Amino acid sequence: MTGSRAWHLASRPSGLPDMSHFELKPVDLPPLADGEARVENMWLSVDPYMRGRMNDVKSYVPPFEVGAPLQGGAVGKVVESRSPDLKVGDTVFHMMGWREQASGPAASFNKVPAMGVSDEQWLGNLGLTGATAYFGLLRVAEAKEGDIVFVSAAAGAVGSAVVQIAKARGMTVIGSAGGEEKCAWVRELGADAAIDYKAGPVVKSLIEAAPKGIDVYFDNVGGDHLDAAFAAARNNARFAICGMIEGYNAGPPPSFRYIMRVIAARIRMQGFIYTDYMAEMDQFYRDMGGWIASGRVKSRETVREGIEAAPRAFLDLFSGGNMGKMLVRL
Amino acid sequence: MTGSRAWHLASRPSGLPDMSHFELKPVDLPPLADGEARVENMWLSVDPYMRGRMNDVKSYVPPFEVGAPLQGGAVGKVVESRSPDLKVGDTVFHMMGWREQASGPAASFNKVPAMGVSDEQWLGNLGLTGATAYFGLLRVAEAKEGDIVFVSAAAGAVGSAVVQIAKARGMTVIGSAGGEEKCAWVRELGADAAIDYKAGPVVKSLIEAAPKGIDVYFDNVGGDHLDAAFAAARNNARFAICGMIEGYNAGPPPSFRYIMRVIAARIRMQGFIYTDYMAEMDQFYRDMGGWIASGRVKSRETVREGIEAAPRAFLDLFSGGNMGKMLVRL
Repeated sequence: MTGSRAWHLASRPSGLPDMSHFELKPVDLPPLADGEARVENMWLSVDPYMRGRMNDVKSYVPPFEVGAPLQGGAVGKVVESRSPDLKVGDTVFHMMGWREQASGPAASFNKVPAMGVSDEQWLGNLGLTGATAYFGLLRVAEAKEGDIVFVSAAAGAVGSAVVQIAKARGMTVIGSAGGEEKCAWVRELGADAAIDYKAGPVVKSLIEAAPKGIDVYFDNVGGDHLDAAFAAARNNARFAICGMIEGYNAGPPPSFRYIMRVIAARIRMQGFIYTDYMAEMDQFYRDMGGWIASGRVKSRETVREGIEAAPRAFLDLFSGGNMGKMLVRL
Repeated sequence: MTGSRAWHLASRPSGLPDMSHFELKPVDLPPLADGEARVENMWLSVDPYMRGRMNDVKSYVPPFEVGAPLQGGAVGKVVESRSPDLKVGDTVFHMMGWREQASGPAASFNKVPAMGVSDEQWLGNLGLTGATAYFGLLRVAEAKEGDIVFVSAAAGAVGSAVVQIAKARGMTVIGSAGGEEKCAWVRELGADAAIDYKAGPVVKSLIEAAPKGIDVYFDNVGGDHLDAAFAAARNNARFAICGMIEGYNAGPPPSFRYIMRVIAARIRMQGFIYTDYMAEMDQFYRDMGGWIASGRVKSRETVREGIEAAPRAFLDLFSGGNMGKMLVRL
């Protein structure tokens, strides 16, 4: 049958992965059984959380298996179908990324809603990325109009969505990013202030940018950013802990000089995964769709070309190689 | 007028305080104005949180002033009154501790409810200590029947109350304490397991004692105990952060190897002060009064004698010198 290539996990990294941990290999796509479909992928998503799946530890998603194809968000077109639920030409979102073609039961592919947006949005602001920003900010941190919000990695995929959602909802926003170019873009997105974490200690910059303190912290980074948020938190501040990219690739355990402020300021810190809020996806599509249509939420992608580019695109997430959402176009 | 002695803050400590930071000096008690009362203290409370008030930082209570008498919980008897609300012989709870006699507006003294308990209970299980345990466990951490609860400093004043409340409400309880004698007492209080944190790494002992993980962590300690709780947390675990005694006296900032589990396990961590729940004190008195009357909650005090003993009693809190509530009897 049709040949197709897929990136496999060659071995488990212990610190920062490199190209040796990935292997691009042909995979057989057996003939479809009844109820199955085959999809040609057009866009692949690479996301920091995937690093966690390369470890052999139980987490909210099972670890990748050594020698097996990697997985991840993807958008593609149905090219063959033996299911009444999918027809050739349908655009679908699914989790069999890191490969050229994917096949399986029709239920593993989700037809994207007819919203007249470009395909790659289903991996970005209308996908995992946007949903993570939306539910983290509005449900987990219960951010509301008038709040002062701090978001780390604000030039990243999730962070840039948080900045824009917060502004659409009438909040004051301080974003952190690495370098002046990224900070300029964070301000362009509407942030009231942008902190360049490479230019000096985050805690100092944050206290200058938010002299009255912060009500909400949306954490993508952990480490010094989280410690700065402890230092700057106002009473009853809420922290939504989405990611701690600083700690994904080992290194010494992070230390926190200001964690004791949790008590006096009654800080509430809460970890989450966007899938906890699947029951509310309709509301997310309605709000986010509206913001995108009105131009309040814009997307920006860093696009790498071709299946060969996928591991490098992924690795570059950990050195800040992306502005907005990192995608691979096939 | 009547002379009385009070402990004053002689200077601000930077790390662990010592006797040189305290000074016992006579204070004048001027004649009472209309509406005022004078109280002879019988019991003084010393509590870890007082260390924070020795620093010159804004917190949930104002800092102690250098050269002024220290403050803290106390129980005494009215010896003179120019208020219709208090009569000589009334037993009152108030915050002008660290001294032999206290005077002020009648409103600064609270007549203790008629519950037939010994006076010192109003500084212990029916006072700040018990209320902190009760609201932290049941409101902040929302602990419920069947939960697996971990509490640090379980042989301390608050911790020993947490152990007993948790057992009264049908939870499984693991308490940590320093040394075999304290651990034995924690088990006597009803804990299902006691961890001696001096005998080995907390994280290892906790995972052995709670192989299925923990639903709730009541933190009095911070540092390695909090990190162990991150490691052992089950999905949707709730942490009530009451104190971090490890960090009260400076030292290097604590580091957390397992903090990233906040995300995958959706841990919720919340700081609190018992005064946030003053509106619910009636319910606390009803529940705690019932548990004391039925013998489900017992109290144990470490009692030091005489006003001179107060600073040493306080300092000994930081080296584990108390079993249960540390009190000074005048």
